[in-house]
Amino acid sequence: MTRIALAVDLGGTKIEAGLVDESGRVLAASRNRRPTGREITHDGLREAVSAVVGYALEQLPRGADFVGAGVGSAGPVDLREGTISPVNMPHARGFGLAEAVSDAVVVGAGSANAEVTLRHDGGALALAESWLGAAAGSRSSLSIVVSTGVGGGIVVEGKAIGGASGNAGHLGQVRAAGHGGELTLEEVASGPASVQWARLAGWKGTTGEQLSEDARRGDRIARDAIVRSADAVGRALADASVLLDLDVIAISGGFSFVSDDYVELVGAVVREWAALPYARRTRVVRSGLGADGPLVGAAALALR
Amino acid sequence: MTRIALAVDLGGTKIEAGLVDESGRVLAASRNRRPTGREITHDGLREAVSAVVGYALEQLPRGADFVGAGVGSAGPVDLREGTISPVNMPHARGFGLAEAVSDAVVVGAGSANAEVTLRHDGGALALAESWLGAAAGSRSSLSIVVSTGVGGGIVVEGKAIGGASGNAGHLGQVRAAGHGGELTLEEVASGPASVQWARLAGWKGTTGEQLSEDARRGDRIARDAIVRSADAVGRALADASVLLDLDVIAISGGFSFVSDDYVELVGAVVREWAALPYARRTRVVRSGLGADGPLVGAAALALR
Repeated sequence: MTRIALAVDLGGTKIEAGLVDESGRVLAASRNRRPTGREITHDGLREAVSAVVGYALEQLPRGADFVGAGVGSAGPVDLREGTISPVNMPHARGFGLAEAVSDAVVVGAGSANAEVTLRHDGGALALAESWLGAAAGSRSSLSIVVSTGVGGGIVVEGKAIGGASGNAGHLGQVRAAGHGGELTLEEVASGPASVQWARLAGWKGTTGEQLSEDARRGDRIARDAIVRSADAVGRALADASVLLDLDVIAISGGFSFVSDDYVELVGAVVREWAALPYARRTRVVRSGLGADGPLVGAAALALR
Repeated sequence: MTRIALAVDLGGTKIEAGLVDESGRVLAASRNRRPTGREITHDGLREAVSAVVGYALEQLPRGADFVGAGVGSAGPVDLREGTISPVNMPHARGFGLAEAVSDAVVVGAGSANAEVTLRHDGGALALAESWLGAAAGSRSSLSIVVSTGVGGGIVVEGKAIGGASGNAGHLGQVRAAGHGGELTLEEVASGPASVQWARLAGWKGTTGEQLSEDARRGDRIARDAIVRSADAVGRALADASVLLDLDVIAISGGFSFVSDDYVELVGAVVREWAALPYARRTRVVRSGLGADGPLVGAAALALR
């Protein structure tokens, strides 16, 4: 009998749900999404949760062993309360996501399977990375996303470390070294921050894609913006590697593809800045996950 | 039948061993120590281990349930190899401490109980803090020592997080914010570093005790040196709290007593610098452990 979990991934633009089996495969027919967005309210979210969860559960194979739901959400979350207060959805503040999912599961699959495990999305993604991605087999890993924001999650011995409230791994909110100590890593190294820095330096483009292309063509400012991002990320990771004694750091996210050597640049900075030999041995690699990563990670919260 | 563990704590000046029962009590008669020091070799260490472990095990009560040994050591350690390479004991590099303890246990208590769990001393101390100290009952805690160095350990859900090689928690080796990004926290905020800074600013004393006394008497430079240390520690802890989502940070170590308000100063800086609300909620408190902390923590590695 195949073990199957419901996975829910809630972000700033959409909420997605799907069924995932114990091998990490997403059941394609179950996958569905609804828009979210900055203006969404508690009522709007409750309705969206009910819709995507209901749709997914209709595809539950007869006789499958349904093990419950895993939920990854834009943070911060509060796993003690089961609530979320995502930075980019101000009207969703304090929304009881765990209960909303649990209620929808009761409707679709019965109350025996209504257990819900909530983490911030970075934690869920890190769990997927340590299960089926580039951190598989490691004792201690940090998986990060460099995109419009910078997020991450920590997995130790196969378990996603949530911390006190479920938000551990939020690398983008540590302070960036070498920038006066005032700015967060996200404010220095994200895609939008890098574009903005290049523009202030005289570059004329407006997107990360243009930055990538111009750097490839030899534009000095565009290249400097990329190196600057990798430097800030690498220095934060050097400290994280000292503090956490990591085997592997896996890097994903749109901006990590801004240059072919972005991950190598970050790795070189980690080796340069980590103060102790054990931290310099941390492998810095590109994510091994595909587009299914967030759903697979959310499911892993329930399956593993 | 009382469960009892052997505890070994190896530091730069001494190695200590003792028996600890499941309530965290050190059996006084079993406690004994030998000097170590900068010049100690592999042979010297092996002899010292054999002596302190043998002495302690002679006190094992008849009929006690002996559960094995826990070892905390000056770092870095390598728990995969069972070796240590303490910074302040250059000739001890690569010493097989786990095997040496195991061999001595076989002699004193028989081979059935020769399992040894090794962590760096900060990790062991943090485990004691979460068991019987100020972090008891917390989900996620970081316990640090501010002394001639700055160390620490992480405990999540009752388990000491070792990381890949057993060194997680080494807060003193992260880079200090606001000092050009080049110096480690230990190089900025330890007792000796604070004394040195004050001397460069014109203060005439030479010890942490004098610094403490002069600050109490109103010496401005001495007070500034203390505030500067607390500021650097607090900023590193703010980042750690964001990354780890901590309930509690417990502070111990001789230099943490340099002023009555040192822990409060650190706490205020954490609340000022932590970029997210969950991290600002972390409680920053003084350690609840006495002088037995290191042995109790080492024992907890085996008992819990």
